[in-house]
Amino acid sequence: MRRFVIGSARNLIESSRQKYQFERFSSSYRFLSSSPAADSPSSSSSSTMAHLVSLSTINPKVIECEYAVRGEIVTLAQILYCNIGNPQSLGQQPITFFREVLALCDHPAILDKSETQGLFSADSIERAWQILDQIPGRATGAYSHSQGIKGLRDTIAAGIEVRDGFPADPNDIFLTDGASPAVHMMMQLLIRSEKDGILCPIPQYPLYSASIALHGGTLVPYYLDEATGWGLEVSELKKQLETSRSKGITVRALVVINPGNPTGQVLAEENQKAIVEFCKQEGLVLLADEVYQENVYVPEKKFHSFKKVSRSMGYGEKDIALVSFQSVSKGYYGECGKRGGYMEVTGFGVDVREQIYKVASVNLCSNISGQILASLVMSPPKVGDESYESYSAERDGILSSLARRAKTLEDAFNKLEGVTCNKAEGAMYLFPRIDLPEKAIKAAEAAKKAPDAYYCQRLLAATGIVLVPGSGFGQVPGTWHFRCTILPQEEKIPAIVTRLTDFHKSFMDEFRG
Amino acid sequence: MRRFVIGSARNLIESSRQKYQFERFSSSYRFLSSSPAADSPSSSSSSTMAHLVSLSTINPKVIECEYAVRGEIVTLAQILYCNIGNPQSLGQQPITFFREVLALCDHPAILDKSETQGLFSADSIERAWQILDQIPGRATGAYSHSQGIKGLRDTIAAGIEVRDGFPADPNDIFLTDGASPAVHMMMQLLIRSEKDGILCPIPQYPLYSASIALHGGTLVPYYLDEATGWGLEVSELKKQLETSRSKGITVRALVVINPGNPTGQVLAEENQKAIVEFCKQEGLVLLADEVYQENVYVPEKKFHSFKKVSRSMGYGEKDIALVSFQSVSKGYYGECGKRGGYMEVTGFGVDVREQIYKVASVNLCSNISGQILASLVMSPPKVGDESYESYSAERDGILSSLARRAKTLEDAFNKLEGVTCNKAEGAMYLFPRIDLPEKAIKAAEAAKKAPDAYYCQRLLAATGIVLVPGSGFGQVPGTWHFRCTILPQEEKIPAIVTRLTDFHKSFMDEFRG
Repeated sequence: MRRFVIGSARNLIESSRQKYQFERFSSSYRFLSSSPAADSPSSSSSSTMAHLVSLSTINPKVIECEYAVRGEIVTLAQILYCNIGNPQSLGQQPITFFREVLALCDHPAILDKSETQGLFSADSIERAWQILDQIPGRATGAYSHSQGIKGLRDTIAAGIEVRDGFPADPNDIFLTDGASPAVHMMMQLLIRSEKDGILCPIPQYPLYSASIALHGGTLVPYYLDEATGWGLEVSELKKQLETSRSKGITVRALVVINPGNPTGQVLAEENQKAIVEFCKQEGLVLLADEVYQENVYVPEKKFHSFKKVSRSMGYGEKDIALVSFQSVSKGYYGECGKRGGYMEVTGFGVDVREQIYKVASVNLCSNISGQILASLVMSPPKVGDESYESYSAERDGILSSLARRAKTLEDAFNKLEGVTCNKAEGAMYLFPRIDLPEKAIKAAEAAKKAPDAYYCQRLLAATGIVLVPGSGFGQVPGTWHFRCTILPQEEKIPAIVTRLTDFHKSFMDEFRG
Repeated sequence: MRRFVIGSARNLIESSRQKYQFERFSSSYRFLSSSPAADSPSSSSSSTMAHLVSLSTINPKVIECEYAVRGEIVTLAQILYCNIGNPQSLGQQPITFFREVLALCDHPAILDKSETQGLFSADSIERAWQILDQIPGRATGAYSHSQGIKGLRDTIAAGIEVRDGFPADPNDIFLTDGASPAVHMMMQLLIRSEKDGILCPIPQYPLYSASIALHGGTLVPYYLDEATGWGLEVSELKKQLETSRSKGITVRALVVINPGNPTGQVLAEENQKAIVEFCKQEGLVLLADEVYQENVYVPEKKFHSFKKVSRSMGYGEKDIALVSFQSVSKGYYGECGKRGGYMEVTGFGVDVREQIYKVASVNLCSNISGQILASLVMSPPKVGDESYESYSAERDGILSSLARRAKTLEDAFNKLEGVTCNKAEGAMYLFPRIDLPEKAIKAAEAAKKAPDAYYCQRLLAATGIVLVPGSGFGQVPGTWHFRCTILPQEEKIPAIVTRLTDFHKSFMDEFRG
């Protein structure tokens, strides 16, 4: 852990930038499209001449920001994407009820046509009317309130209350185009200079490192403990906080991703209480990434929101500043392309919330379909509704299949020589550790790649399976990992396991001492 | 003009902040919803105690950023919104073909049902199939390529070619959630510190001042000449550029809004050529806000894109860096709630475009419905398509009505004592100038309001008509204006004119010398 001291946001970025450069072995990767940039007249000409704007004259924060999940490796593969949490790209079907409501809200003119009854469920028609009635003038094509349509926020707040058993206020909800803009908004609000730090887990979802870099702050890493199933130890938080303070960093906030990405752990309630207590004691804003709240696969664990945990400890508005992020891209619905999400902002004063509202208003509002979908996932069909049975069957089918896939892949990884893989208790990923032979590490060095990136690229070339090297997420120096989603359709998993196993064996044979 | 010298971004912000504070006469305005923040348990408690995060500890750039279009004044009115370019909130109906396609793409399961033929036009069904075939796995719920779905970018590029008569490259297109995120992306790229300046028109659309403030740059104002119909004089650009350079500001880019917002002028082609030449000579990126390209109301003016103009001058990729912003929120379609838009980025090297792509990828992708809609507005039904006639009738009905409304309101303003109003040649706004009596200015001072804000608030209280005070957009010091949209439905315009005329007369009577 010694190389990852405080202030090591730079290290993290450096290593990830290195990765970025190492992996660049195709000049056309920047545009993933089938017609690469190099083929286009503008780009081919532009590569040979000086342009007005150059790398040396753009904002260095932009250059520093890196984003591992969508890197070069992605552009090379058309085959088995196990890299991104993008379920519908791998064949997962959308929840019928949600799509019925969206279609009806998009084209309300058909709502009272007789043919519509034959095409749509009765409760989707009813829900569409309810939603339209919440929109001034039923205008789904109008900008909404910059926090989102009030009626939809009411629905979401009610859904949070049902989930948590504690009150939720629609005025605390800010609907956003997915969770990412919400994270950016909070980083923009909290980061004043590079002297402001944000505690982030390592490994972490690279949105956080990217956003902190873009906003010019310092990433203060804390390590999840792989040996205890990616445990989050408060002692580690304290240690990193103190070290960073001794270096003059003002730590503003703690990011917790629960269930974990890329690590898949689900925090125990006692652990969450200790984290809340830590934030309260140390005066940190708790930024709770809870986008995988529906994705829990093991009976011994349950998702508890940090809001519920803090309220159950008796802590209210005045005790802790807490932001919870939710997205329609995850869960059993996996509606990534709809870009819906929200943040629930509690424990901030009216004056600061006014500033958050102002920043939201500069972008006018999030997309209305995403807003509607966010209300639907927080208020799905209920017992007695016409769609309830089919909805439940779709949801349970997806979630139980994901649980089986997680277990199958975990077992497969654990059978590989030199690989150990913690359980995916939740979320959509496994993050196995791989002990690479010394010769493989040397080969990677010779190829100017991080060892895990080298492994992933060899795997890709040999099998068409796309994984994300652990170096993009951060890892204890000297250890190597990769992230694998559990999202490929179930019938494809055996083939993936076979290909991976065969590749791994031959890779190890090639490099074994 | 003397007070608006270079470096006066601060002045602009100060005046707009003053405005922000002056107009604050309701403590609950921050949340527009029907249940004001002050009623909620969290907010009422939060106003009386110290919170962890305070105004003094958040990012000062957030505090400096102001956004006039959605300010306090908006929250007070439930009546006649003439303030925001939000057509469907005022009763404009969406274009049927566009919504048919969106609904079918949202719920493709109905595409081959027989009832669907009775509900949807044949060409909307065909277009939906075409679009779905362009999406890998037909998955409208999946994240797309971070620039947007390649097939949709092909369609948009083809639409640009038809519009301009010059080639367009789908790899130059970045689809975004409305135009605002695209503007932010470019500001983030170009602004390194407060020493970097962006030339912006005054009056300007406050997205620009807000975005420049958020990214820590300096707004370098240039004045549009009201006397010549809000003319854009290159001599003024030169003067402001030189003054700012003498103060150590590196001017990076020129923002041009054409057709103008809030000013409604449409630039003549010769004028555009001079602007292109200026940018080329001075090494400025030309940021062309062309979101009102479909909104031209006078036969003597036509919209020409800056790309067409620069290409017609023989300038290519290597000669000028040009970004054109387009949005589905404007035009005859007015689909604000869909948050679709794109920027066409030309004249940047591959390395810099790679950085733009990277920033786009941090937010994964823009919403797919907005992407689809952006492709539809750039490729609407054609002669011979089943929907063509109804589509054309809807489009022409909206545009001709907007032209009539613009003329009616312009005439009405020009009949008011002390008011002069330039023609709205395009866009969706009038920006009349009002010479206020000395006594009214004194009354405004006593009320701690800018005189135009005072006028607008009196108008609102008396009539329910919401206008935006000119001080939010910037204006020559000592002059006063307000922005009025031309969007209220045509049958409501006579009542608006009557109320406005009556109010104005009594206001002037009250304060006349």
